[in-house]
Amino acid sequence: MEQQKILCVGLVCLDIINVVDKYPEEDTDSRCLSQRWQRGGNASNSCTVLSLLGASCAFMGSLSAGPVADFIMADFLRHAVDVSAVIWQVKGQTPCACCVVCPSSGSRTVVLYDMNLPDVTAEDFSKVNFRQYKWIHWEGRNAEEQVKMIQQVVMYNSTLPRQQRITISVEIEKTREMLYQLFAHGDVVFVSKDVARHFGYESAEAALRGFYSRVKAGAVLVCAWAEKGADALGPDGVIIHSDAFPPEALVDTLGAGDTFNAAVIYTLSNGGSLQDALTFGCRVAGRKCGFHGYDGISRDFTEDWTKS
Amino acid sequence: MEQQKILCVGLVCLDIINVVDKYPEEDTDSRCLSQRWQRGGNASNSCTVLSLLGASCAFMGSLSAGPVADFIMADFLRHAVDVSAVIWQVKGQTPCACCVVCPSSGSRTVVLYDMNLPDVTAEDFSKVNFRQYKWIHWEGRNAEEQVKMIQQVVMYNSTLPRQQRITISVEIEKTREMLYQLFAHGDVVFVSKDVARHFGYESAEAALRGFYSRVKAGAVLVCAWAEKGADALGPDGVIIHSDAFPPEALVDTLGAGDTFNAAVIYTLSNGGSLQDALTFGCRVAGRKCGFHGYDGISRDFTEDWTKS
Repeated sequence: MEQQKILCVGLVCLDIINVVDKYPEEDTDSRCLSQRWQRGGNASNSCTVLSLLGASCAFMGSLSAGPVADFIMADFLRHAVDVSAVIWQVKGQTPCACCVVCPSSGSRTVVLYDMNLPDVTAEDFSKVNFRQYKWIHWEGRNAEEQVKMIQQVVMYNSTLPRQQRITISVEIEKTREMLYQLFAHGDVVFVSKDVARHFGYESAEAALRGFYSRVKAGAVLVCAWAEKGADALGPDGVIIHSDAFPPEALVDTLGAGDTFNAAVIYTLSNGGSLQDALTFGCRVAGRKCGFHGYDGISRDFTEDWTKS
Repeated sequence: MEQQKILCVGLVCLDIINVVDKYPEEDTDSRCLSQRWQRGGNASNSCTVLSLLGASCAFMGSLSAGPVADFIMADFLRHAVDVSAVIWQVKGQTPCACCVVCPSSGSRTVVLYDMNLPDVTAEDFSKVNFRQYKWIHWEGRNAEEQVKMIQQVVMYNSTLPRQQRITISVEIEKTREMLYQLFAHGDVVFVSKDVARHFGYESAEAALRGFYSRVKAGAVLVCAWAEKGADALGPDGVIIHSDAFPPEALVDTLGAGDTFNAAVIYTLSNGGSLQDALTFGCRVAGRKCGFHGYDGISRDFTEDWTKS
């Protein structure tokens, strides 16, 4: 049997990153210092990192045929991410974000076009062959549909012995009311600092204690807190912590959270402990902030980091 | 013999046009109302319009292989613009501009990436088969090289009877010192309102009188002045004028100048008078401002306008 994969369900978009020396004033013409095109979207970024770490992984999300999708597909291919579960929509456009990054002020300004491309539905998801996967991760978006998808996996799992079941993880990153129903549906739940602070929590530990009543029995709740590292809480009630591993120089923090999630999923899906997973997540995410994009993450590094 | 074409030499780029309800503040995330991708660049836009008007035309400029070039080539093809003279550069990236258009404030903010793609050289140009062309238009950019290109055409013309010669036109749009040498090298010279005002001229007529000493003997100098219409001055010393033809509602002024140039070249290359050319230029450019992009310009319209 082929190696089982990790499937990430969520957004893929094109990020056009313009680096400027000064944020442009309205109604002016200016030139940027550099521009790069990058495949973006949380689930899509996590796939990149999983693949670079050496895991077999697949992406599921919507695309609409055209030059943006061509760029994205070529980049998925380059990173050996399985795209057979991509849903090709006949209406709408693939989302594209114009980002203006200004290193001198430290700002990043994003104008996203993400209006009319339908999300993946539970109906689309029902066509997936679950036997290919050992882990399925959802980036919280159209949560009602996503809950229905998760219920399909729960049903599938109920026919199998425990060791063969698919692990379910969800990410609740944005402060949108409809996403909070996802807390109850993951074996592993990632909640963002943003959401935690929106609820008034001022530390990862406080957030974990506060949110833990929302997760299902036996679940693990994970909360990363930027330069403070990350914490996790499982059914034994013990808070696990890892410090952050900041790079020598901060170069690019875009996608650091997606990198953390991928490294945690990578470790847990290989049977690592929660402490190993948190520490590895912080290490990989910290290193990633020291270079542009993701390609500096490699399997060789991984082996190195795992040993250390 | 195949019909001789009009060749436009200059920039092609991708314009990503984000329509917003409010210009984004620095360091925020926002969504735009709509986004469209459009082939841009002055010479490239003029080709589109020439082709829509029913003229055979070709584009010469630099491209670098990749998704941006794919989009641009498909769009050239869709508009039946001959791309056999395109120079494929092995270093650099095809320029891409992120434009933020805010209809409520009337602003358009442009961040262009146009740094490292080499321009077409006189050496590249020397490989062109001049016999294909009846008219060659240069968008002023790398003017020193462009003067060398023009000298090649002048040499070629000197071997031919007057009626078979290639007409040379140049556009001086940007206020850059090095471009002003182009005044002396066109049979038809387009100078922008921007350049005119930079020299202190407050009307098209004043600009034409002021700049005429810079053009070569027998040349025609043309200056469009937005809602004031356009003026032209030839060797007889008589100023020709056309009023503007504003659309019922201003929808999209991006590329109106390139449309004007194309319609003037179209008329003159078909043997029309200077007055016909100016009037037709103002008519087509005015109509164009009433719709998005260029596809509303069609040959049927043209016949209609030519008659009226």
